[in-house]
Amino acid sequence: MSGVERLGEQLERIERVRKSRRGRFYLRDDFITMSHGSGGKATHNLVEGVFATAFSNPVLDRMDDSALLQLSGARLAFTTDSYVVRPLFFPGGDIGRLAVHGTVNDLAVAGAVPLYLSVGVVLEEGFAVAELRRIVESMKSAAEEAAVSIVTGDTKVVERGKADGVYINTAGIGLVRPDASVSAGNARPKDQILISGRIAEHGVAIMMARNDLDLETQVESDTGPVHELAAALIDRLGSDVRTLKDPTRGGVATALNEIALQSQVGLVIDEQRVPIRPDVRGACELLGIDPLHMANEGKLLAVVAAGRGDNALDALRGHPLGLDAAIIGEVRTEPEGLVASRTAVGGERILDMLVGDALPRIC
Amino acid sequence: MSGVERLGEQLERIERVRKSRRGRFYLRDDFITMSHGSGGKATHNLVEGVFATAFSNPVLDRMDDSALLQLSGARLAFTTDSYVVRPLFFPGGDIGRLAVHGTVNDLAVAGAVPLYLSVGVVLEEGFAVAELRRIVESMKSAAEEAAVSIVTGDTKVVERGKADGVYINTAGIGLVRPDASVSAGNARPKDQILISGRIAEHGVAIMMARNDLDLETQVESDTGPVHELAAALIDRLGSDVRTLKDPTRGGVATALNEIALQSQVGLVIDEQRVPIRPDVRGACELLGIDPLHMANEGKLLAVVAAGRGDNALDALRGHPLGLDAAIIGEVRTEPEGLVASRTAVGGERILDMLVGDALPRIC
Repeated sequence: MSGVERLGEQLERIERVRKSRRGRFYLRDDFITMSHGSGGKATHNLVEGVFATAFSNPVLDRMDDSALLQLSGARLAFTTDSYVVRPLFFPGGDIGRLAVHGTVNDLAVAGAVPLYLSVGVVLEEGFAVAELRRIVESMKSAAEEAAVSIVTGDTKVVERGKADGVYINTAGIGLVRPDASVSAGNARPKDQILISGRIAEHGVAIMMARNDLDLETQVESDTGPVHELAAALIDRLGSDVRTLKDPTRGGVATALNEIALQSQVGLVIDEQRVPIRPDVRGACELLGIDPLHMANEGKLLAVVAAGRGDNALDALRGHPLGLDAAIIGEVRTEPEGLVASRTAVGGERILDMLVGDALPRIC
Repeated sequence: MSGVERLGEQLERIERVRKSRRGRFYLRDDFITMSHGSGGKATHNLVEGVFATAFSNPVLDRMDDSALLQLSGARLAFTTDSYVVRPLFFPGGDIGRLAVHGTVNDLAVAGAVPLYLSVGVVLEEGFAVAELRRIVESMKSAAEEAAVSIVTGDTKVVERGKADGVYINTAGIGLVRPDASVSAGNARPKDQILISGRIAEHGVAIMMARNDLDLETQVESDTGPVHELAAALIDRLGSDVRTLKDPTRGGVATALNEIALQSQVGLVIDEQRVPIRPDVRGACELLGIDPLHMANEGKLLAVVAAGRGDNALDALRGHPLGLDAAIIGEVRTEPEGLVASRTAVGGERILDMLVGDALPRIC
């Protein structure tokens, strides 16, 4: 197949998905609610109903975690995220570490080597400079850990009460690996689905830090970079790595739904195969939130070609952050755009995106 | 001179400037104040004292409005800005238009063709979706006007009262023109200084919109893209364009101080040659703010090689946005790092960066 034909096919698929999404996501609200920030269904309604429609262009319409750009011969990934997590410091991390690794991870799941970050901070009048320095030091070491440079920035201040200490935006640029060809739109029937480790730890750590629940054990956020896990997978499987996602806001369930929708396939996972700490599962039960909807900030969700699951598992487990990796499901032809979950008793339930605002300001 | 020697010289200069800046800017405050967001001296103290020290690397240390990146053969400019302007809508523009053109302009003054933007919004719970749509439509038309594509984005929501409707961050990528070689560190003695049009209109428009003063005439913000003005200059003068700046927060005076500091030269301007509407000057007098400290959001400040001022003026005036362009001063050897202003009566005064918080949340 020639490059021109492939591009034409890709554009057709994007247009088809764009239309089907438009039908599925529609913003009916007159006012912004906390659920629009959940990363789940309401966020998708807002993004599709307001932003994606207005700004529509071929790069944006792919709706991956990073934009893919061709610039003077270089293939770049470009992404942005704002961080409004509350509290600013939590077990296992802080807003600074999150802001660096979140954007590093969005580049990594585009099959890119993360390289450069920008940082924009909105500070609240009265915020302690000592806390700001702590956050900046944390960003510095997070950047070193992920081998990225912070190369440009901006600082604004708003009046007391008009922010919670600090909001941080990071944007990032990475160089897409020539051997990578990943997109949420690339999953094909019979492909296999993997997760790099135990889920729901960021969400539970944040809820615990807010004193929303009291457990005997300590749960730390998994905030960390997944670029080496992504690289290990691509090193081993090349273009047999179809899709990579970091299942943050909205959790694994929302990320899987995005893949099902973008690829126009059905996904099914086996709940018992999803790795999770028993105390984290217990915390989720106490909170009444499905762990599959809980945010992760250092996990990689991967779809790989049929039959390559074991190689992928091996590649992930070869990295210290991937020791608990597991194959958790597979891709089906139908029902198109939906995710099913096989329960412990053998039934199947539909696994939707996160609905509502159970987890405000989780990142 | 070989490329290696030139690079060595550049790095030496950057190191020298970095050290002299460190001495000049030092953060003594324990808490963030509104003046840290003014764009003037306190902002520089914060940026130098906290961010630049921690994140120091050769790209960041240039401290230009955009970072310059070499990526797989492509020479890129990369920049970011957050926008917290109050009110969200003002005569001549709104936060959306500002957020697009502000970042477009930071790329343009790096000698780059602006190409791609990211958008990160922090929304306040309860914000009207109709207002958000208005802002998004404004961003869309601003992007079209500047020929850039919005290719990636992110949406967060914070509780009622924790933001003022919406804060917007944009980051941008542009391709640096091969014939451009501009930097705030490139001004040389005898170079000439130009401004592309009448100053202080954004600042005055915002102050009027806040009902801080009541004038008979209407002043509109100059919010707009300067990329065509920058291109016209580079088309005509090539590398004889030494420095480009968009004098936003902190105004022309702060931008000139940044050039003096980065280039280790003295600058002198002739106040009477700086174009300004009489009613805008009157408004500044009422407010007790030097118009040279007032923000502009669609003006280009340029330093060009000695003897090229008239060519530069001609290039600027050939564009509808440059009809009021003027040569306003020149570069001197001394006093190094300082800006002087010749007053109407023939004296000279030192023109410092904006000090204090006279103009909070101007962009």
